[in-house]
Amino acid sequence: MILRLCLISMLCLALRADEGMWLFTDPPVAQLKAKYGFEPTPAWLEHVQKSSVRFNNGGSGSFVSADGLVMTNHHIAADCLAKISTRQKNYLSSAFLARSRADEQKCVDLELNVLLSIEDVTARVNSAVKPGLDAAAAQKARRAVTNTIEKESLDKTGLRSDVVTLYNGGQYHLYRYKKYTDVRLVFAPEKAAAFFGGDPDNFEYPRYDLDITFFRAYEDGKPVKAQHYLKWSAAGPRDGELVFVSGHPGRTSRLQTLRHLEFVRDRQNPTSLNLLRRREVLLKSFADRGAENARRAEDELFGIQNSRKLRIGMMEGLQGPALFERKQAEEKTLRQAVMSNPEWKREYGDAWEQISVSIGAWDGIYFDHYLVERGTAFNTGLFQIARDLVRLAAELPKPNAERLREYSEAGLDSLKQGLFSEAPIYDDLDTVKLADSLAMLVDLLGANHDLVRQVLAGRSPRQRAEELIRGTKLKEVGVRRKLFEGGQAAIDASGDPMVELAKSIDPPARKLRATYDEKVDEPLKQAYGKIARARFAVHGSSVYPDATFTLRLAFGVAKGYQEDGRAIPWATEIGGAYARSADHGNREPFNLPKSWLDRKNRLDLKTPLNFVSTADIIGGNSGSPVVNRAGELVGIIFDGNIQSLVFDYLYTEEQARAVSVHSAGILEALRKIYDATPVVAELTKPGQ
Amino acid sequence: MILRLCLISMLCLALRADEGMWLFTDPPVAQLKAKYGFEPTPAWLEHVQKSSVRFNNGGSGSFVSADGLVMTNHHIAADCLAKISTRQKNYLSSAFLARSRADEQKCVDLELNVLLSIEDVTARVNSAVKPGLDAAAAQKARRAVTNTIEKESLDKTGLRSDVVTLYNGGQYHLYRYKKYTDVRLVFAPEKAAAFFGGDPDNFEYPRYDLDITFFRAYEDGKPVKAQHYLKWSAAGPRDGELVFVSGHPGRTSRLQTLRHLEFVRDRQNPTSLNLLRRREVLLKSFADRGAENARRAEDELFGIQNSRKLRIGMMEGLQGPALFERKQAEEKTLRQAVMSNPEWKREYGDAWEQISVSIGAWDGIYFDHYLVERGTAFNTGLFQIARDLVRLAAELPKPNAERLREYSEAGLDSLKQGLFSEAPIYDDLDTVKLADSLAMLVDLLGANHDLVRQVLAGRSPRQRAEELIRGTKLKEVGVRRKLFEGGQAAIDASGDPMVELAKSIDPPARKLRATYDEKVDEPLKQAYGKIARARFAVHGSSVYPDATFTLRLAFGVAKGYQEDGRAIPWATEIGGAYARSADHGNREPFNLPKSWLDRKNRLDLKTPLNFVSTADIIGGNSGSPVVNRAGELVGIIFDGNIQSLVFDYLYTEEQARAVSVHSAGILEALRKIYDATPVVAELTKPGQ
Repeated sequence: MILRLCLISMLCLALRADEGMWLFTDPPVAQLKAKYGFEPTPAWLEHVQKSSVRFNNGGSGSFVSADGLVMTNHHIAADCLAKISTRQKNYLSSAFLARSRADEQKCVDLELNVLLSIEDVTARVNSAVKPGLDAAAAQKARRAVTNTIEKESLDKTGLRSDVVTLYNGGQYHLYRYKKYTDVRLVFAPEKAAAFFGGDPDNFEYPRYDLDITFFRAYEDGKPVKAQHYLKWSAAGPRDGELVFVSGHPGRTSRLQTLRHLEFVRDRQNPTSLNLLRRREVLLKSFADRGAENARRAEDELFGIQNSRKLRIGMMEGLQGPALFERKQAEEKTLRQAVMSNPEWKREYGDAWEQISVSIGAWDGIYFDHYLVERGTAFNTGLFQIARDLVRLAAELPKPNAERLREYSEAGLDSLKQGLFSEAPIYDDLDTVKLADSLAMLVDLLGANHDLVRQVLAGRSPRQRAEELIRGTKLKEVGVRRKLFEGGQAAIDASGDPMVELAKSIDPPARKLRATYDEKVDEPLKQAYGKIARARFAVHGSSVYPDATFTLRLAFGVAKGYQEDGRAIPWATEIGGAYARSADHGNREPFNLPKSWLDRKNRLDLKTPLNFVSTADIIGGNSGSPVVNRAGELVGIIFDGNIQSLVFDYLYTEEQARAVSVHSAGILEALRKIYDATPVVAELTKPGQ
Repeated sequence: MILRLCLISMLCLALRADEGMWLFTDPPVAQLKAKYGFEPTPAWLEHVQKSSVRFNNGGSGSFVSADGLVMTNHHIAADCLAKISTRQKNYLSSAFLARSRADEQKCVDLELNVLLSIEDVTARVNSAVKPGLDAAAAQKARRAVTNTIEKESLDKTGLRSDVVTLYNGGQYHLYRYKKYTDVRLVFAPEKAAAFFGGDPDNFEYPRYDLDITFFRAYEDGKPVKAQHYLKWSAAGPRDGELVFVSGHPGRTSRLQTLRHLEFVRDRQNPTSLNLLRRREVLLKSFADRGAENARRAEDELFGIQNSRKLRIGMMEGLQGPALFERKQAEEKTLRQAVMSNPEWKREYGDAWEQISVSIGAWDGIYFDHYLVERGTAFNTGLFQIARDLVRLAAELPKPNAERLREYSEAGLDSLKQGLFSEAPIYDDLDTVKLADSLAMLVDLLGANHDLVRQVLAGRSPRQRAEELIRGTKLKEVGVRRKLFEGGQAAIDASGDPMVELAKSIDPPARKLRATYDEKVDEPLKQAYGKIARARFAVHGSSVYPDATFTLRLAFGVAKGYQEDGRAIPWATEIGGAYARSADHGNREPFNLPKSWLDRKNRLDLKTPLNFVSTADIIGGNSGSPVVNRAGELVGIIFDGNIQSLVFDYLYTEEQARAVSVHSAGILEALRKIYDATPVVAELTKPGQ
């Protein structure tokens, strides 16, 4: 009974905290009612869900007008901004405002998704993966059933259809999305305003960033008539107000076992950090050579610095004792509960050991898999294109159920969107990137490794990279299309050096993939499936799944916190940006753009600019709408503070905070700094 | 006979190339005579030797006036400039000119050495290390005899006395130096002029850098009356002219075996590069937070970026096939020659295998030794101070012959110069450095490693670093002195957290040291001794030893080269700096300082600024005087081009070049940009 009590008290604790990235099919109704006296109706949930937008390059957003206006973060828009920029016109660094629909600039390869429905297909998946199958057969069966479910759904509905693995294998849901691929730029501020404070202020608070961009979704050449969009709250949230975040958190690891977390701490994160630092130094060196170099590398460099700072914060959590002590206690409680019940013990008892074994197998192939199958050794988009073409030629002739997941019928349209993208490729940049990643291949596997010799073909990393990038014709989209359409015969005849490289390493890469799928992925799914069922059995349904870059609902209150004995306010004001810039002598990255300096005296400097809340978010939530009880948009998530960087592993609410741009600050800037009259009119249109 | 011919042709090849970092006791007289018809006299050699100065922080320089004026590179002076700078006055970034002797600014802890004599003590060392001793005993005997030789020499001459290991163990020389510790700043240009082009242009050519600084050596409070100093050549070198470089190349690895080079390629260099990238990202992040942060981190960050670019260039050479093919051929030739002579075979034949075994032993303790004994896990000067104090307390009571090399009697004065230095220590900077290096310790050894747990003591890396840096009193020089004077009792009673840390890891660290000394260092010395004797036997004496940061003579001609089909000129002109700056929109690091912009119209823009030569140099040569046949100073080495970065492993002269500032360009800038009348007068004084 002591165990029971303990479990109940843990559950109560969970209820008290604003924790959770909840499924829209299983929202935290009880918690919201108990703590905030608020009960979201099905209509409220549907409205928020269908107003939410996924940016397939890794972020979130929302419809904010009936005419298909979509708001996201500038740093999510950056991918599109960089791809439409040229030496002459830099959309990333300058502000942009379309004065008319005709002025709106079309993105190159952006895909937006709106989630229309969720269907639980766990039973169908599990019945296809019969107990007693060996791992290879189970993996094959699981792939077949998911490929098939997706294809059937696509054929039936015409909607993008993804089978999503939840609870690391505990449940399978079919998500259907409305897809938008004609997306046009409407408004973006200068990067200096959007990312004011740069890397030093990233993941920190107080902040003063106007991290927003507006796009418009088009269909058949016309602006989308959005049935669901969020009304703009001109006032925005107040201190202490309940708010909701509807977005697409990318990945969390909260349900991972201790052994798995140790692997993350001792192998995965250090390896990622070495890679990120390596690429940061490389791209920074490249960028420092001149203004055009800087422009070419800018967006990628930002992404790398962002991930580096994030992971260092995560590692500080993982390498300290507190996090592991808490995880240890949680795991012990769950395992003891399982072991104390004979049925649970029989069903779930071996899961933890099974995970340890799988992690051991992973460790054994870690670097080879990472370099060769994941392609980390070939750091150029041209290699990914070559690999896709080589594998498509082999996969497409197979029945859909037997294909590698990423080449299944249901995903082909989205795949082609990237494969045939007209996004610019820069020989100089890709040469230094590829040379460096080939050097890393030599570093990690050793110069005498057979595969290394095969890849380098008697050249140094730099020479080989120059040869490959200079020689490949894959820079031309037409060449890619021909190779795609020509299938295996075209691939075999191409003679393109990058295609030849992708071909030559495909056998060892596929072998690593097969080992990974059978020894790591499948056993992990099975074991985590057991643990998920054990959790449901022990804790009831008050468990949300780890994040999977699918739509979730989080909630919390706008609220400051204490740090080093100081009270950190819940919100900052526009005037604070000027003060912080002055404190740093207006030096980069604390230099406000000219528009801000010129229009300072027009502004109400007391207008809230950024604010923090206790909502539970993670990377992928960038651009998520923050809404109030009335379902109005009161802000947009763009960051978490440094204390929130352990959210990957656990949620805390003492100091950890989500950071948003305040809806009042956005309006003030649009009106008085950017004279963005058409956008403001659209956002504030009466009757909206 | 084919073998002989082959050897002779290799020898001839060596004679034709401007290769070599020659001992002043064994200068390349035959080569110079044969190729250039120049025969350096003993007087010429003595004059150049005694005009040359070693900067003990890692560079070279020379006396350039009778009143003790010393010229080196700005980037070698940077250590002193950073240490005397404050938040208010930044000597590193601004120009400085002492208008009078009283204005000259004293460095904090700089030591200069002038080489007075060289004595071959090989026989004495070898006779002390009796054949048949086991490695531990041999290592002990070798340490005893070198400590003793140095102490005897110090007692006899009062001069700094260092026993230097040459040919990786083939010879031992006793070097005696005159030491200067009162060194004062006379003139330094702005860093923007000294390091124009920054990291992008570093190790590249054409260049436009005024990388010079003048100091004055003092003794007993008065300027040193230099018996030997180099006369200034106002004209400087012409295209094609023979020049000499007299300086202190730090380290080369040209005599290493293939197995050893593979270890460098696959283990040492990748590890160093990971560390350098890690620290670069860390310090750059720290620096970007504000101007004062940037100032605090500047000098260290430069050093890290410099090493990173250097090592990436080295790795590009090591990871390509050409270098190893050449090394393979050389090693094969030598081993075949040894094996074909029964006596050589008996004496030297097992050396290569012995090296392989030692490298294997090294690999086995690599990370532990690197982190714990070399102290890489504790990246703060305060830890080095703590370790020195802890070890001094244990070592000083021992007889001199038994002490660790770095605490032997002869070196104590120089050690104390650093230990009791008043150089500033910044808590914020040292905290982030230590936190990051502790995190690296966890990364590399794993969080569950006993030593990691012991070091972290239940904290996260960041928490532990904050605790140690905040808590230690070693920031006060007085505290250090008391601990030094108080010996073991004072150490035991101190309770200082950094001292406690150094104490607690000393047993495992010393154990790693002992393993390294016995299993790696001593067997390597013995094996390389054999290979050195084999080389002498096979190739004769035309072999120079690998660099050891001791005085060497190199030679070559001022000469351009071909690159990608373009002719790269032998020299650049001052006007070129303005052109390159304009090409980059005067953006950092291509921004010329105000002094250059203001005085442009005074200058003869055609004056040579930098030039390249075929001289054989490496890191440590920075600041080396370049002299002509007349022994006049015609330039100062400050860099090598990107093609020279493989000089660590082999010399080439097709494209590889040493880069110098031209003596005419220096005078022009001193006169017309800096109005440095007293310095110019001193350099050009008639009769000098």
